[in-house]
Amino acid sequence: MNEHTVKAFDSDIGQLRGLISEMGGLAEDAIAKAMQALTRSDLALAAAVRENDRRIDELEAEVERQAVRIIALRAPLAVDLREVVAAMKIASVVERIADYAKNIAKRVPLIESEHRIEPVSILPAMGRMAAEMVRSALDAFAARDAAEAARVWDSDAPLDDFYDSIFRTLVTFMVENPTTISQVAHLLFIAKNLERIGDHATNVAEMVYFAATGEHLADRERGGLERE
Amino acid sequence: MNEHTVKAFDSDIGQLRGLISEMGGLAEDAIAKAMQALTRSDLALAAAVRENDRRIDELEAEVERQAVRIIALRAPLAVDLREVVAAMKIASVVERIADYAKNIAKRVPLIESEHRIEPVSILPAMGRMAAEMVRSALDAFAARDAAEAARVWDSDAPLDDFYDSIFRTLVTFMVENPTTISQVAHLLFIAKNLERIGDHATNVAEMVYFAATGEHLADRERGGLERE
Repeated sequence: MNEHTVKAFDSDIGQLRGLISEMGGLAEDAIAKAMQALTRSDLALAAAVRENDRRIDELEAEVERQAVRIIALRAPLAVDLREVVAAMKIASVVERIADYAKNIAKRVPLIESEHRIEPVSILPAMGRMAAEMVRSALDAFAARDAAEAARVWDSDAPLDDFYDSIFRTLVTFMVENPTTISQVAHLLFIAKNLERIGDHATNVAEMVYFAATGEHLADRERGGLERE
Repeated sequence: MNEHTVKAFDSDIGQLRGLISEMGGLAEDAIAKAMQALTRSDLALAAAVRENDRRIDELEAEVERQAVRIIALRAPLAVDLREVVAAMKIASVVERIADYAKNIAKRVPLIESEHRIEPVSILPAMGRMAAEMVRSALDAFAARDAAEAARVWDSDAPLDDFYDSIFRTLVTFMVENPTTISQVAHLLFIAKNLERIGDHATNVAEMVYFAATGEHLADRERGGLERE
């Protein structure tokens, strides 16, 4: 590439990163608002989360269009091409994360607000952990920060443990309060959605780490939790 | 494009379609085997489903590599570019479908085989419906068959109804048999995974329809079920 092309490419990729940052912010916001809607039985807020998801879908489509345009127009090689493809993949993961937040919001109207069940109160802490992972993963992407990506990866095991603990708590609650089972089943799905959000943030962290170092996070020298 | 380039492009896209067909076959197989593993408590088969998922991940990565290569090398325009990008997106959806099958397989060891619970018997029919949707969606893609894509789209509502009915059945079963709750919770997640597989098959159908007609399936003139 000549100097002009290099500059144009840098500007293009900068735009792509900007779009992904915007998506990440909206996804993080969607998680926080979905959890708020849940704890306050706020149907209007839940509806807003579902509505805002369209904007995230649009942004993903925009990332895709721009990425294809960059590849077709600039014909980037090796590292640059890897970065464009990574951007497209990360946008698709962020869209999936937002989808989980939307799914949480969709359950809010299904949970009766009149007989609020106590286990609702344990979910927001898990929601904050998941949203935090999403933010850190996107920060790592923006700063090409392999160390931050590794931290995100390490925080997935605690989130999984949290999920396991919530799962047990919810099942125990069901056993003791059989009339609440259908309500609590929704909470089980919500906890599972949060756990999946953490998995996807971990996927982003893996891509960022690989893009920055050329090595796979899972292969790092350390205690090495077995993950799939 | 000159004649040589056109031929080369056709051959490239043919290869891409071949890879996606292979992925689709494996995904369909994974769903069937995961459900078989579940009903027979066959841990070895469940482990095989998890193992085979790697091949599907590899194929998705291969589709991505080839798609990027085609775009960079042949610089396809308009319709052709739309087709390459659609192939990449469909591969990613098929990978997600296979992921759900893998998630089902992962639950098999968590469901005690000694005290088999009756509701397990209602899931295979839902599994067959979901797998059938995946096959039809991929057939529609291979044949660029908009009518077949529309049929897949129409079959998503019955699958959703099936899911709702299973959800109610499982919750009723939990209420009546509180000691089985943690077992039945796994079945709830499995039913949900099958419902999501149907959603993704529907996504594929939407992409096939759009690629073939330039119109959105949801905008067709007909009774018009409200979907999101």
